[in-house]
Amino acid sequence: MEQDPGFIAAVEEAKQGLAEGGVPIGAALVSKDGKILGRGHNMRVQKGSAILHAEMSALENSGRLPASAYEGATMYTTLSPCDMCTGACLLYKVKRVVIGENKSFMGGEDLLKNRGAETVVLDNQECKDLMEKFMKDSPQLWNEDIGV
Amino acid sequence: MEQDPGFIAAVEEAKQGLAEGGVPIGAALVSKDGKILGRGHNMRVQKGSAILHAEMSALENSGRLPASAYEGATMYTTLSPCDMCTGACLLYKVKRVVIGENKSFMGGEDLLKNRGAETVVLDNQECKDLMEKFMKDSPQLWNEDIGV
Repeated sequence: MEQDPGFIAAVEEAKQGLAEGGVPIGAALVSKDGKILGRGHNMRVQKGSAILHAEMSALENSGRLPASAYEGATMYTTLSPCDMCTGACLLYKVKRVVIGENKSFMGGEDLLKNRGAETVVLDNQECKDLMEKFMKDSPQLWNEDIGV
Repeated sequence: MEQDPGFIAAVEEAKQGLAEGGVPIGAALVSKDGKILGRGHNMRVQKGSAILHAEMSALENSGRLPASAYEGATMYTTLSPCDMCTGACLLYKVKRVVIGENKSFMGGEDLLKNRGAETVVLDNQECKDLMEKFMKDSPQLWNEDIGV
């Protein structure tokens, strides 16, 4: 699953976020037939945004879609989704959430499962390395991003 | 509570959304000392946005803030918050969510309460009238907005 185009895109997005001086978390929303509907990364720094977490950017960059477009879709994300991003996946009934890692931060995985979404945690080393360095280098920014 | 500046602002925002041809739902985020941090309305139509529900717009228009800014804050919204907006309120630990009505749509109120947020439902007639007319006039747009 680490070779899925959606996951590769999510990691690319995380690295792009880092290169821009932002929070290095990326995501990609992929339809049931494998098409990347949208991809994006955290834009807190770049746009001064309180809501553009990676998964939210991926949803926003997918544009306005009917509910049918999300049927069977997978959200790939480099980090366990926070409450907001969990809720967004629930709103659109994303079927599966593939998570790079949840060691740095554990989000709403239980709620996703309780509501019928599949979750897969890859425990990906590259994702962990990105977050570990970021949390060490920018603890204040990281806290702001998760409301702590 | 229907005379709170935050609620009045939320209703004004909902009407503004309607005037723009959009989904007539508004919200305002108010700090513990009564300052409106940000207000906004649903921007699905106006910006082709999948994530700018009213509460999300209010959070986004509040800008980048430290966690302390949300302490004791109230989110006023004209309609019961969907899963995404519920999650956003949880992320930032909004203390209280004041809801115009939940007859047209019931969102994540139980989750908010389970997680320690106070919820108040006003059962406001103006909010109900706005939604009732909208849901009758634009059922497809409404379904799209709630992922149905």
